[in-house]
Amino acid sequence: MDYVMRPIGVIHSPFTEKKETPIQPSRSKAIGRVELYPQFADGLQDIEGLSHLILIYVFHRASEYSLLVTPFLDDQLRGLFATRYPCRPNPIGLSIVRFISRDVNEFEVEGIDVLDGTPLLDIKPYMPEFDIRHNVSAGWYETRKKL
Amino acid sequence: MDYVMRPIGVIHSPFTEKKETPIQPSRSKAIGRVELYPQFADGLQDIEGLSHLILIYVFHRASEYSLLVTPFLDDQLRGLFATRYPCRPNPIGLSIVRFISRDVNEFEVEGIDVLDGTPLLDIKPYMPEFDIRHNVSAGWYETRKKL
Repeated sequence: MDYVMRPIGVIHSPFTEKKETPIQPSRSKAIGRVELYPQFADGLQDIEGLSHLILIYVFHRASEYSLLVTPFLDDQLRGLFATRYPCRPNPIGLSIVRFISRDVNEFEVEGIDVLDGTPLLDIKPYMPEFDIRHNVSAGWYETRKKL
Repeated sequence: MDYVMRPIGVIHSPFTEKKETPIQPSRSKAIGRVELYPQFADGLQDIEGLSHLILIYVFHRASEYSLLVTPFLDDQLRGLFATRYPCRPNPIGLSIVRFISRDVNEFEVEGIDVLDGTPLLDIKPYMPEFDIRHNVSAGWYETRKKL
């Protein structure tokens, strides 16, 4: 069964070319602007109290996927699902960003790593109790050759 | 523009009714089984080295959304996007689980919190450098009345 996703807004960023985008938001200080379509503005209530948000979006300029890929930070083929590579069967991306300020249906964030015009699917609060895990092994990423 | 998502597999869990599911995977020790459709099995290479995974899936039994909701852990109306409430414009869920073991196109995980039969859209590695943030404020969640 297929599921149809309809964007709730658009992410504006300084990046218009794929090669410009940071590899991950944790490595970016770039400022972005998240614009919700006006009919969703009420859903942003209480967002000012949150320091970090999870943006869920479409990798709208990703090409066809392969099940084995060479990650940006590695030099060997890895299973796609063990990587954050953007070309995926369902091209859904996820970025954790720092909330700065809101103006009705728009808000500014720090640490954006997506292309300008990225279609936004969802926003979730980043919550330490749910989202921080300890004793984590990152597998290939810990022994990779590139930094 | 709409985006069509087609599940890559299905999540099996002990939970068949919404009221049974844990509120978050961080509060669950339940074991689940993630079954990828066989054509995606090669994408699981290198997954054994990862201790934690992010599962992205459809809240397939969520009902219509409201932009203001009372979270399970609170007693006041909150903006939907400041909560993890399952009924959303795009009903995409996200759970961080602990990887246990893999058998070809299936793997077991600990800390599952979804309904049995949940359609799986993507799997990403949970990586401390990308996914752990410090100095986080969780807003309403920190001052809520329920635990």
